[in-house]
Amino acid sequence: MSRDLLGAVSVHPGRRLTARLAQTLAVAGAASFETAPVAGLTLTLEGVPGDPHAGFTRRAGPREPWHPRGTEIRSGRQLSIVSVEELAEIAGAMGLPAVEAGWIGADLVLDGLPSLSFLPAGTRLFFEGGACVVVEAQNAPCRDAGRAIAGHTGRPGDELSFPKIAKRLRGAVASVERAGEVTAGSDVTVRVPEQWVY
Amino acid sequence: MSRDLLGAVSVHPGRRLTARLAQTLAVAGAASFETAPVAGLTLTLEGVPGDPHAGFTRRAGPREPWHPRGTEIRSGRQLSIVSVEELAEIAGAMGLPAVEAGWIGADLVLDGLPSLSFLPAGTRLFFEGGACVVVEAQNAPCRDAGRAIAGHTGRPGDELSFPKIAKRLRGAVASVERAGEVTAGSDVTVRVPEQWVY
Repeated sequence: MSRDLLGAVSVHPGRRLTARLAQTLAVAGAASFETAPVAGLTLTLEGVPGDPHAGFTRRAGPREPWHPRGTEIRSGRQLSIVSVEELAEIAGAMGLPAVEAGWIGADLVLDGLPSLSFLPAGTRLFFEGGACVVVEAQNAPCRDAGRAIAGHTGRPGDELSFPKIAKRLRGAVASVERAGEVTAGSDVTVRVPEQWVY
Repeated sequence: MSRDLLGAVSVHPGRRLTARLAQTLAVAGAASFETAPVAGLTLTLEGVPGDPHAGFTRRAGPREPWHPRGTEIRSGRQLSIVSVEELAEIAGAMGLPAVEAGWIGADLVLDGLPSLSFLPAGTRLFFEGGACVVVEAQNAPCRDAGRAIAGHTGRPGDELSFPKIAKRLRGAVASVERAGEVTAGSDVTVRVPEQWVY
């Protein structure tokens, strides 16, 4: 544990940041996890109604090798949040003009927040109107998203290169803490919690 | 953000620890949040059935001044987890022979884990049989718990001294990730996630 000279854990104070909700996206069709830009989203405490990730619970999959596949578990993955800046960084590293947020199923795209993928668990995003979401974890890029990108670029190799290139750039997964409407183009207040290293 | 010489965020690797589930406790009566030791608990994805903290959601209170009081929000506080060592430290600082976990409404008491209150959000506790809970946040000691202690000690001043003395020693709040039975006296595997300071 990271401690100071007196033996106390070094606690880094919480702080507030601001950002802009550049895009809101919703699932485009039943057959895919891909999303498409919409003017706004209704967030309920279970997530985005109609989205395959909505719900307080979900089935354990390859991301949770510590639970038997298919076991009903707490969700923690209602929402996928990415940033304009990190998407541009991924695109640059892949040699693409752009990677669209919808290709990888994002629900919310933020602009103006440095290193969004590193927002710690417990970070709250407050939207105009009152809705609030809480960051659960850094999102791990997977081959499914890489395959979706390859489908748009026509480059089969993107399926495998995306998970490597997008590591620690793929944004965060989050849960809804308070329901409400969120609108593309509105401001977001970000409350980073106290942090320490255990 | 804490970065290394090359500008990358310094990521501290996750690790596994082990501890013992010293006690399991359940609500003793409808009129109080206090708990009493039981041989084991059934954890569902909503928490401990019959406990006032069970549920995927709860009403916002004084702990969430950023939401209107009474708004339905994501819970994040299904379970209260404390440690033998930190309870002993609180008792010592209060000049008491002991502070019982049940007085302050704990559900689970761990033994053998240093500074349990500093387990970061996202830490998973795996119990024998498969149940798993995930740490949401450090628990903030409140006057209600202080009042409950005062009721046992007969010292009215404990109501106010407890919240000060128990700060960063009052354990963690957690949600159930995978349902199952947990039994007092059994082993617990603790998986601390990767950490960094944003």
